[in-house]
Amino acid sequence: MIRIGILGYGNLGHGVECAVKQNEDMELAAVFTRRDPQSVHILTEHVPVCPVADAAAYKDKIDVLIICGGSATDLPVQTPEYVKYFNVVDSFDTHANIPQHFENVDKQAKASGKIGMISVGWDPGMFSLNRVYANAILPDGKDYTFWGKGVSQGHSDAIRRINGVADARQYTIPLPAALEAVRNGEALELSTREKHTRECFVVAKEGADLSRIEKEIKEMPNYFADYDTTVHFISQEELDANHSGIPHGGFVIRSGRSGWEGENRHIIEYSLKLDSNPEFTASVLAAYARAAYRMNAEGMSGCKTVLDVAPVYLCRQSGEELRSHML
Amino acid sequence: MIRIGILGYGNLGHGVECAVKQNEDMELAAVFTRRDPQSVHILTEHVPVCPVADAAAYKDKIDVLIICGGSATDLPVQTPEYVKYFNVVDSFDTHANIPQHFENVDKQAKASGKIGMISVGWDPGMFSLNRVYANAILPDGKDYTFWGKGVSQGHSDAIRRINGVADARQYTIPLPAALEAVRNGEALELSTREKHTRECFVVAKEGADLSRIEKEIKEMPNYFADYDTTVHFISQEELDANHSGIPHGGFVIRSGRSGWEGENRHIIEYSLKLDSNPEFTASVLAAYARAAYRMNAEGMSGCKTVLDVAPVYLCRQSGEELRSHML
Repeated sequence: MIRIGILGYGNLGHGVECAVKQNEDMELAAVFTRRDPQSVHILTEHVPVCPVADAAAYKDKIDVLIICGGSATDLPVQTPEYVKYFNVVDSFDTHANIPQHFENVDKQAKASGKIGMISVGWDPGMFSLNRVYANAILPDGKDYTFWGKGVSQGHSDAIRRINGVADARQYTIPLPAALEAVRNGEALELSTREKHTRECFVVAKEGADLSRIEKEIKEMPNYFADYDTTVHFISQEELDANHSGIPHGGFVIRSGRSGWEGENRHIIEYSLKLDSNPEFTASVLAAYARAAYRMNAEGMSGCKTVLDVAPVYLCRQSGEELRSHML
Repeated sequence: MIRIGILGYGNLGHGVECAVKQNEDMELAAVFTRRDPQSVHILTEHVPVCPVADAAAYKDKIDVLIICGGSATDLPVQTPEYVKYFNVVDSFDTHANIPQHFENVDKQAKASGKIGMISVGWDPGMFSLNRVYANAILPDGKDYTFWGKGVSQGHSDAIRRINGVADARQYTIPLPAALEAVRNGEALELSTREKHTRECFVVAKEGADLSRIEKEIKEMPNYFADYDTTVHFISQEELDANHSGIPHGGFVIRSGRSGWEGENRHIIEYSLKLDSNPEFTASVLAAYARAAYRMNAEGMSGCKTVLDVAPVYLCRQSGEELRSHML
């Protein structure tokens, strides 16, 4: 059994707990929290919830610590810190800062002889993998990534900060016409507005000026100004009833050419349709926790990303079983 | 530069030649053929076409030999033989015999210190990879593979063997309704007939009994009897004009569940739409030739499949570049 620790018990940590339950070769060893442990109620029986300060003391009781903090301020500190004691996996997703994070984690992981697996999830993660595979196969081609239909937490938060808004949920939606054109192999330069639309469900406070709120949303730079945005005002009850899930997904498509003169066209497409963004991300984290455990058992150490992991390390089954049944 | 040799210059060997041209870090060193070398005209200038008996003499002039023979009788002999001298890559695709082929190649590859990369292509190959990734992430789920729309060489050949048939081309077509149901997350047990249809374009010899030919096709066991099959009789000119390509493709879909009680559903889908089946397969072979070269340079040897190759080995770019731009 691979003994898993969870650091941080929000949506993602809860998802990891569920994923561990689904994987027969894993067991949950402990959950660490910055909150009062008494206030954190996990689902797995007979597993301790501990203050984060106690984590290092679990050094010999946990094989892989899955760090479920945020990318802005938590992970840049936590991942290099805890890789001193454990193999760790994180979902660091600030694309631009990955090289720096890699370097920080690599240094500590090499010193401790552990594996620090970073930026695991679906983007970065499975989407990155698919970009790399598709680029390796079709060097002469073009990549397209579409996100959605799904909830963007950042955009929902941005709406909530507007004066007069009580609650909000924002969906990012890929434009079907753009998807179709890319799938038909047309080599396109698509603008932001041509790839995605944004749909907002907003609960206004009593007496708020709806047209002012709508205008503020639609003109918000970076978040909405470059998109065709639709705003619906609904009641809190309707928001809770119809928009409480956290679905997401998207498409990675590469359109490329082969042949002596590039005469043949090929389309490689990978897509995800997810009922729960955090639970799916957590499921990816669990698979890469298995890989971290196995790779470390073979003597590997240092910082790794999904690009460094041979697929055979991810599945519970042996290489022999996979070759017989899945190859 | 990675020096590539090609053994066997049919559709696949030709595709590899084109792929090598597209990859800036590769050069074609030699082509080996069982035909009279004088009769084989390749596209790359200043590259020798040699009798297959000379291959071993190129031991120090070739980094990776891509073996483009057939799975029935060529590869079971050629791959274990040439891995004595070279890193090799093949596209062995008889799924049931992969474990035996693996064992044969592994033994010779370990003795020679080379890498023998087998069963590379799209199925087995990219489709296998996607089955493994999706199973690792969603252990509670179900796999579906659909092939097509594409030309099945084996089924086209089977029609050509019927008395009175001059030429034929058979397309395997996935049923849109089945694809849609799977994408909607319905857990289905689909029969053969519910997944694919078969469409045949047949050129009959003069005076042949068309209704007898159609009946023989539709009732042919294994090949057609379990499918809804459509037969169109056309002229040789029409076949040559409209059905001379070798397109193919397909879909690998996993529908799975997450959550404490499996309450959330996720769909992972990978699909290919290929103008040229052999050229795409060749493009995959070229990428894995790069991986074989690099892995061997790091001291690895033995038989490998796509499941054993970390994605970072496949792209021309360094790990650092990939982390900065594609992760």
